[in-house]
Amino acid sequence: MAVVMDEVALTAFLQTAFAQVADDFTVEEVGEMTARVRLNVAERHLRPGGTVSGPSMFALADVGIYVAILAMVGPEALAVTTSAHMDFMRKPAAGADLIAEVRLLKLGRVLVVGEVLMRSEGQEAPVARAAMTYSRPPSGGGAT
Amino acid sequence: MAVVMDEVALTAFLQTAFAQVADDFTVEEVGEMTARVRLNVAERHLRPGGTVSGPSMFALADVGIYVAILAMVGPEALAVTTSAHMDFMRKPAAGADLIAEVRLLKLGRVLVVGEVLMRSEGQEAPVARAAMTYSRPPSGGGAT
Amino acid sequence: MAVVMDEVALTAFLQTAFAQVADDFTVEEVGEMTARVRLNVAERHLRPGGTVSGPSMFALADVGIYVAILAMVGPEALAVTTSAHMDFMRKPAAGADLIAEVRLLKLGRVLVVGEVLMRSEGQEAPVARAAMTYSRPPSGGGAT
Amino acid sequence: MAVVMDEVALTAFLQTAFAQVADDFTVEEVGEMTARVRLNVAERHLRPGGTVSGPSMFALADVGIYVAILAMVGPEALAVTTSAHMDFMRKPAAGADLIAEVRLLKLGRVLVVGEVLMRSEGQEAPVARAAMTYSRPPSGGGAT
Repeated sequence: MAVVMDEVALTAFLQTAFAQVADDFTVEEVGEMTARVRLNVAERHLRPGGTVSGPSMFALADVGIYVAILAMVGPEALAVTTSAHMDFMRKPAAGADLIAEVRLLKLGRVLVVGEVLMRSEGQEAPVARAAMTYSRPPSGGGAT
Repeated sequence: MAVVMDEVALTAFLQTAFAQVADDFTVEEVGEMTARVRLNVAERHLRPGGTVSGPSMFALADVGIYVAILAMVGPEALAVTTSAHMDFMRKPAAGADLIAEVRLLKLGRVLVVGEVLMRSEGQEAPVARAAMTYSRPPSGGGAT
Repeated sequence: MAVVMDEVALTAFLQTAFAQVADDFTVEEVGEMTARVRLNVAERHLRPGGTVSGPSMFALADVGIYVAILAMVGPEALAVTTSAHMDFMRKPAAGADLIAEVRLLKLGRVLVVGEVLMRSEGQEAPVARAAMTYSRPPSGGGAT
Repeated sequence: MAVVMDEVALTAFLQTAFAQVADDFTVEEVGEMTARVRLNVAERHLRPGGTVSGPSMFALADVGIYVAILAMVGPEALAVTTSAHMDFMRKPAAGADLIAEVRLLKLGRVLVVGEVLMRSEGQEAPVARAAMTYSRPPSGGGAT
């Protein structure tokens, strides 16, 4: 399968569809079933002590996998997150962006499964790991 | 075991320790191993279409279980979220607060396990379910 | 929604469709979106020390939710487990059956979400908690 | 960190400590924070249709991560599985062994986090993915 949206197209799509949060993220690279997305860490993502908050890491994982799906199926897809699992292994480094390496493990007609490994920029040891499942609407819409 | 912090004490603690997000939440009730916490839904919690965002639901689950832990062990505890699992079952109702019913399933010396069932106010069908694990630091601190 | 298969019908169905493991389980009770299923603990379910093994607890959760689905939709359904999350809170009591209390949180056309709380018979504190997601095949079959 | 138990030592340990199930598995290779473990698929692991059962995949993931932990910390460790998350992506191939590629993401004093990608032998597309958390007992024992 080929990539049908590149970094520029994905960035433009996020700006339009998710204007409220698009500036939080940079789509660094997409490939076949993969993506690398950056959380541009700002004050609003931090908890006391300067650590990136759990909800911000959740958002990075969710957007990261969503970007990888869009890259493969194009903007017509309206995938919905149906489950999310995260393991938090280490405190993120203070003052560093978070980099999410995304991989799609399954891109089915109904379900998509993706995983994310997250690191503080410049660090080798992973900060968190996420696995998320998305449901793709049937053509013509309808409830899941 | 008895509750050692009530709703008023918990609210004051959140205002001090998590000033940035404390206004997002209302501690409605705590009991032995239970809590009910409200997400005061505002513009910043929404996605296009008026639905509460995934990261906001994650934040509600995380704060909800944290509140239930604090209620049982008091403010000296610095529990860290080590894993989180969420199932998203239905779209939250637009314009409605989210109510989290929290239950602690295990309150160990090292690990705490809690679960959350989340509903849009006034609706019976649950919006999301979360299970989270927290690690409590050993007395005297130290790495996990 | 009404229950369409009762305990007798479910037991007969398991004996036919899953002959290899049906004797491991007793369908004690089903209701609207709920079930109670027992693991008839035998030597083959144990680990050294007499504790019920993790895979046996997984099997109980999986069968328990499957039974609750069958009770609501009947034997024509061929739901497939797509994800499973389990928290193990306490060691099961040695020499005691495990009782699973099952609840369906969502019974959609495509996805089903169920949860299970598991206790050793006669004990109040839960041994494990599970959340599982099932995909129902579209009418006429087809890949997910 | 160096590996302290090799494939031969690990196999001998499993035969002693888990005699009941040790023959189900082959420790193919261990490395620093990694392992590859095979489920020697036999009749007892199958469901109707010849597919490897969910509990058997759970067992493979659990043993695989446990082997990777033992390889790094030696046989004195008595790690306990505290949570497990699995995504099931595709049906295993009938009549093929399952191969688990294991990686430890965190090997802490208290918590260990590992992940597993599982494939039917000879197939590229993964069958299942697991993330599991283990709690290591404090020196001298004690409850978690």
